[in-house]
Amino acid sequence: MLRGGFGGMTARGRTVTEAPAGLVVYAPALNRDLVTPELRPRLLRSCRWLLPDPVADFEDPRVAKSLDRVEILLTGWGCPRLDADILDRMPGLRAVFHAAGTVKNHVTEACFERGVRVTSAAAANAIPVAEFTVAVILLANKRAFRLQRRYRELRGFRLWSKEFPGLGNHQKTVGLVGASRIGKKVARLLSAFDFDVLVHDPFLGAREVSDLGVEACSLDDLLRRSDVVSLHAPSLPTTHHMIDRRALSLLRDGAILVNTARGALVDEAALTQELVSGRLDAVIDTTEPELLAADSPLYDLDNVFLTPHIAGSQGGETSRMLEVALDELERYVAGQPLHEEVRLEDLDRIA
Amino acid sequence: MLRGGFGGMTARGRTVTEAPAGLVVYAPALNRDLVTPELRPRLLRSCRWLLPDPVADFEDPRVAKSLDRVEILLTGWGCPRLDADILDRMPGLRAVFHAAGTVKNHVTEACFERGVRVTSAAAANAIPVAEFTVAVILLANKRAFRLQRRYRELRGFRLWSKEFPGLGNHQKTVGLVGASRIGKKVARLLSAFDFDVLVHDPFLGAREVSDLGVEACSLDDLLRRSDVVSLHAPSLPTTHHMIDRRALSLLRDGAILVNTARGALVDEAALTQELVSGRLDAVIDTTEPELLAADSPLYDLDNVFLTPHIAGSQGGETSRMLEVALDELERYVAGQPLHEEVRLEDLDRIA
Repeated sequence: MLRGGFGGMTARGRTVTEAPAGLVVYAPALNRDLVTPELRPRLLRSCRWLLPDPVADFEDPRVAKSLDRVEILLTGWGCPRLDADILDRMPGLRAVFHAAGTVKNHVTEACFERGVRVTSAAAANAIPVAEFTVAVILLANKRAFRLQRRYRELRGFRLWSKEFPGLGNHQKTVGLVGASRIGKKVARLLSAFDFDVLVHDPFLGAREVSDLGVEACSLDDLLRRSDVVSLHAPSLPTTHHMIDRRALSLLRDGAILVNTARGALVDEAALTQELVSGRLDAVIDTTEPELLAADSPLYDLDNVFLTPHIAGSQGGETSRMLEVALDELERYVAGQPLHEEVRLEDLDRIA
Repeated sequence: MLRGGFGGMTARGRTVTEAPAGLVVYAPALNRDLVTPELRPRLLRSCRWLLPDPVADFEDPRVAKSLDRVEILLTGWGCPRLDADILDRMPGLRAVFHAAGTVKNHVTEACFERGVRVTSAAAANAIPVAEFTVAVILLANKRAFRLQRRYRELRGFRLWSKEFPGLGNHQKTVGLVGASRIGKKVARLLSAFDFDVLVHDPFLGAREVSDLGVEACSLDDLLRRSDVVSLHAPSLPTTHHMIDRRALSLLRDGAILVNTARGALVDEAALTQELVSGRLDAVIDTTEPELLAADSPLYDLDNVFLTPHIAGSQGGETSRMLEVALDELERYVAGQPLHEEVRLEDLDRIA
């Protein structure tokens, strides 16, 4: 019988309590990077783990027979969907601590209906996405991805500023679509450089605009005025294909579109047409579907730097997300307020 | 007969004086980016220009006949070497304001012997080099250049952290070889990210080390401990091939060498061997000679991101250098101390 964070223990109290019983649920291959030597002891003592290793399949007999004792889940990429059926088999489930960004792939409305608390590590995942975004903006303005290929082809020099008018990062305008956690972090990192930063976000207040040192504007204005447009909006029905043919047509010739957010934000057919024609450049880390069709011209265009969804946490970067999940789990056990809780109503506005 | 900065006018005085007579000497193709609409009026009124356009050839008859009246030169890329012969034809030359980085390609000892003052815009050129360096470090730690090619080849996903152990920017160690103006700027930009930064520079004082928030160490220690090594030392006889076969052998497997400085710092044959074997990755913007041999394997290796010497000022970035040159020229005319003067003794320690 458990007490502790679920009743007896308060943040002030130091009652020794039995920890809640839990499972770690993510693709086991992630374990090596996620659980650093520094985090392992914290992970081990944070909960009474019903199985010694991460699991990814609730139907595995070892896992299946422990489900009725589960009170918390520490989840990550590869956790199966927590639908009503599986929740019926975990009647004691109280909380899900997600050691990754979006919870939308596994957390369902049924979790919230049953009062299961949910936290996400989106805060930690925002760091590498923002870093990657700033790096590709700096290199795309230098046309570095194109010049790398051009040099390979020419094996000679040209006056690059003649081939690429407006080359460089001096006094460029960067437009951020969406002042999400990532969008704001990008804005803060960009302040170290010589950019004018525009932001379009219907939910951004005047105070935040001024704190970020950016200029708020409409999406159309942003598209017309920016040298680089970087997408940081969540993927929602309301943002589906927000960058459509008309939006793309507002971009100036030679403008650069950066998508480290979600493929669904962009009408890929329309973008592909603008890229095949050579009118625009793009850095694309996310497409819809996630794996780009094998016959897409985007793989081979010189004006496209296409990466396989790597802006988010990779390798050692994933351990930051476990750290957030453990922070939350420890707060929960100590009866303290959670910092990164996701509520049902958030699902309509977050990534 | 001139007075002003050369005698009559002081910083306090407002005597109207005749401006010195000068020539603008750089490759005319640079003009469009260098002279922005904002800078044009400043350039025009900063001096009494003997010719209305930039020139790049002292033997051009229009130019040749004005040499004996030249008191100042505003120079840039493409300015011919200012040797004793040409200086004999410019007996009135008092100062050279260079609107680019290194002055070593055109300024000779003979200039200093004749008391010609020299300023450089290396301060402005440091900005884009540092920006480019930080951007490639962030992407190289993500193996983004390799993954872009790998995705193109596979048209599928893998667990990238398994293909590239240690993927990502979390808690990486970056070693900066040389705390030059650029090296220091890189260190300051890197402080926004999650890196330990090591610096090797025999001339760096303890106070500067602490101000930069870095750790000073020997070159060998730096090479052994760093995930990324970035070169920011000047090209001098003492730094020639400082990254030789032995130095490279100290780098850990999978380490990344970044060279945005000068090709002569690296033993290219030794580096090529380490890159062909796949033991190291590299981002190479500078080689010796500047144009890499057409049969070099570096053009085609997947673990090399090779760019055609673009880290420094390109396109719009060059106007920052004209701004520095005009700042200096205006100070000179006003009889104020110069901020970016280069002296003969500096040539042995600067890039």
